[in-house]
Amino acid sequence: MIEPLSYYIDGINNKDRIVLSRAITLIESTVPAHRVVANQLIEYCLKQEKQSKRIGITGSPGVGKSTFINALGAEIIANSQSLAILAIDPSSTITKGSILGDKTRMYEIAYHKDVFIRPTASSNYLGGIAQNTYQTILLCEAFGFDYILIETVGVGQSEIEIKHLTDLFMLLVLPNSGDELQGIKRGVMELADIIIINKADKANEQQAKISVAQLKSVLPLLNYQNKEWNNIVLQTSSIEKIGIDNTLKYIESYFSKVNIESIRKQQLLSWKNNLVIQLIQEKIMSNKNIKTIIDEFLANDAYSYKQIQKINTQLESLINKLDS
Amino acid sequence: MIEPLSYYIDGINNKDRIVLSRAITLIESTVPAHRVVANQLIEYCLKQEKQSKRIGITGSPGVGKSTFINALGAEIIANSQSLAILAIDPSSTITKGSILGDKTRMYEIAYHKDVFIRPTASSNYLGGIAQNTYQTILLCEAFGFDYILIETVGVGQSEIEIKHLTDLFMLLVLPNSGDELQGIKRGVMELADIIIINKADKANEQQAKISVAQLKSVLPLLNYQNKEWNNIVLQTSSIEKIGIDNTLKYIESYFSKVNIESIRKQQLLSWKNNLVIQLIQEKIMSNKNIKTIIDEFLANDAYSYKQIQKINTQLESLINKLDS
Repeated sequence: MIEPLSYYIDGINNKDRIVLSRAITLIESTVPAHRVVANQLIEYCLKQEKQSKRIGITGSPGVGKSTFINALGAEIIANSQSLAILAIDPSSTITKGSILGDKTRMYEIAYHKDVFIRPTASSNYLGGIAQNTYQTILLCEAFGFDYILIETVGVGQSEIEIKHLTDLFMLLVLPNSGDELQGIKRGVMELADIIIINKADKANEQQAKISVAQLKSVLPLLNYQNKEWNNIVLQTSSIEKIGIDNTLKYIESYFSKVNIESIRKQQLLSWKNNLVIQLIQEKIMSNKNIKTIIDEFLANDAYSYKQIQKINTQLESLINKLDS
Repeated sequence: MIEPLSYYIDGINNKDRIVLSRAITLIESTVPAHRVVANQLIEYCLKQEKQSKRIGITGSPGVGKSTFINALGAEIIANSQSLAILAIDPSSTITKGSILGDKTRMYEIAYHKDVFIRPTASSNYLGGIAQNTYQTILLCEAFGFDYILIETVGVGQSEIEIKHLTDLFMLLVLPNSGDELQGIKRGVMELADIIIINKADKANEQQAKISVAQLKSVLPLLNYQNKEWNNIVLQTSSIEKIGIDNTLKYIESYFSKVNIESIRKQQLLSWKNNLVIQLIQEKIMSNKNIKTIIDEFLANDAYSYKQIQKINTQLESLINKLDS
């Protein structure tokens, strides 16, 4: 069942959360008729003058992302601001969802009227996470949320995708004896605008101090690319609510210093690039001549150098038709 | 500089590690002339009668993967078996490599004559990690290693790729108060043939027991798909060398029970599928008409619904030429 464009636009303008949820489901759809309305809706959203702070939050499992978001979110709503939380789980491609839900960890904010929480469906194709998330961000922004927090699990490709669609990228790490710094990969550290040592609870104070010192000594070695901001290390205890207000101050300071317009231009370009690659993939992979070549190649369950030569030749002569 | 096929074949047969290293570099190359030799070499490797135990090892940063591999590796070489360790870091696409190397954690085995350690370069295209890793596995197998351990960081897409190219998939987790079980995603747990509670050191004994009990209670809820093996939970202390010999026994038991031939057939098919998608991508994305359409779309740094309609029409009419 598909609603007309006006249904979604009106619902978003009237701050109707049920419509927002349905709009997100719409943009995640790959059905052509849904895509037509979805694309029009995205165009509408991009034209709105509203601007949210788009913040990516990442870190390994167990680092306390949900508890941190609970504490930061409570601080944000205490300042009379609203927020949307988008949770992405790139690992759930086989059976979706985690064993326990995250809402229990966001107990302070999960049912607050100014808070909207939504898991983002992962997707089977390259760049699919970014594709859906970016459009969901645009919907939430048009809806008028002041903050949009995008939580992602794991250390991998998804971080790099999320980096490209947020304004500010935060990495959460644990206070450790230093022995474990090696586990944080350079690639992800270089993306982080703010590194947070979370779980710096009173009991871990000493360890946290050592971690801060260590990370600070590492910062100058990183190839951090933002010229308008110096990447920093902060410490928080999300459970004891230590350092959360300070973190929010740094977030606001970040947004006052960077050129949001140029960041947004980059995000749109990165998304458009993603989109066009996806369109090409979909069309190519559903072409019947391409399918025939693939099927023939896979029907033979052995491997030979000649097979590779053959499929290369077949693909080349087929794709050469594009030049005719 | 490219060597003839015979150079690589002779080197592998003579157990020359320098040649093995160069062969891995060769198969990672995308230069067409290199690919020709690489494909012939892969065909040769697949024809050899040798068979390694291919084991994927994954877990979050800080869970102690390298220390575990050090302990398991020491046990393997104590049994007069040889092993290759391939380390994959999918997060290192921006600047490669971690802050500290992993070899320091593998101090017992890193310089042993029967051990070969090699990081696998990640790659920019979809399935690139799996592509290179699979071919590296084939080279190491032809070289004659008894075990091939493939270490991968993070919780995400790379796990699923690695699952498809190993015979046995192990997930390492930390002993926790149970509070943090939610961090381990169901998708990854369902892939694991053996779940290891690592860092079950004497000091953490109580926590480890609780974790084992918890995970065992979760196992029946998982959609584990291997009919020839029951997924199990074990506990180890890699530092105190507790449970390592037991783990190796379970690994051997696994290999005595499963049908390796059908697993290998599946691996080859999955790799061939990957390979053909990559070949298509490369050829399509380097086509000049496709490039023109993309460039025109990206040159406009706004977004409109009409643009999407236009590029859809352009791509469709171009790709329709494949049917002519």
